[in-house]
Amino acid sequence: MTPAPNPERRNERSRRATLDATIELVGDRGYAQVTIEAIAARAGVSKQTIYRWWPSKAALALEAINDFVGEAIDFPDTGDVAADLVQQLNEVVRLLKGPIGAVFRGIVADAQSDPSIGAALRENIIEPRTRLCEKRLTAAISTGQLRSDIPTRAMTEMIYSVVYFRLLFGTDELDVGDIPQILDHTLTGLRPR
Amino acid sequence: MTPAPNPERRNERSRRATLDATIELVGDRGYAQVTIEAIAARAGVSKQTIYRWWPSKAALALEAINDFVGEAIDFPDTGDVAADLVQQLNEVVRLLKGPIGAVFRGIVADAQSDPSIGAALRENIIEPRTRLCEKRLTAAISTGQLRSDIPTRAMTEMIYSVVYFRLLFGTDELDVGDIPQILDHTLTGLRPR
Repeated sequence: MTPAPNPERRNERSRRATLDATIELVGDRGYAQVTIEAIAARAGVSKQTIYRWWPSKAALALEAINDFVGEAIDFPDTGDVAADLVQQLNEVVRLLKGPIGAVFRGIVADAQSDPSIGAALRENIIEPRTRLCEKRLTAAISTGQLRSDIPTRAMTEMIYSVVYFRLLFGTDELDVGDIPQILDHTLTGLRPR
Repeated sequence: MTPAPNPERRNERSRRATLDATIELVGDRGYAQVTIEAIAARAGVSKQTIYRWWPSKAALALEAINDFVGEAIDFPDTGDVAADLVQQLNEVVRLLKGPIGAVFRGIVADAQSDPSIGAALRENIIEPRTRLCEKRLTAAISTGQLRSDIPTRAMTEMIYSVVYFRLLFGTDELDVGDIPQILDHTLTGLRPR
């Protein structure tokens, strides 16, 4: 007797195919050039299915990022905050230089003219990761490795903003090899005197 | 005898009307919502005229920014680099919070999917202002107010990137009142120990 198909499993397969197709296509062609139709065709699902699950290309792109990245950029805590930040930023930069970076840049672009996409970007990507970073910085303050008189939110902004500056403006190469030095410049001002 | 109309002057009037219309419309509606047709209608020029002078909306927007901003954000040099940077960043933030900020965000958005717009953004906006900032920082290094072991380009990146982070991600309010503190956090690491 053949078991009845499990609709949940079929949905999960379509969901996965759609998220994978989003990352692949955006990585190849750039975010602005990719339509929901193209994603549907690549994933083998209908356009209607995609719109039933995600209200916009940006919503789909945000879920694709979070799904792909998962725990990959969680903060290590070896006790050495500088080493841990280098390791975490290396992982962030490695992701941003690949297809995930193309997806992320597309969402940031859309957010400039659509405040609801900006809010979704903050809620799903920026703020959860800011809180994780703040938690690691708070631990470093408690062990005397960082100053206690600068809010951890401001520290987080300083640590990441140079990476996003290079990514979005393309001024200088965003290179994993540069992370220790970029971070060292910032941390110099964040260490106790 | 009526003098013949001066075509140069007429062109300058159309050029000015087009640049002004760009800033007004983008400030009101947002960059993505404004078409070349709408700018032409507001400026009282033909679409063909605009396309003869500017190859794209982004090219027009870049010229509108530079034309509007002019010398407004040149670097003062009173001898006190912290005070001078506060004054200059205040002016930058004041501009970015108005229609100019909307135009700028639109160009950055377009640059994410069009490398030629990214190159034009760097060439016309980012790099000339980076060089001006580097010049002011070099003077501050020579008077011992800043460390000599961090490249002025890296310092400039650190000083401005937090402002752009807030502008593009909308995480925290970009407020003139916050500039002295943001800058103080960064400069702490850039001063001689």
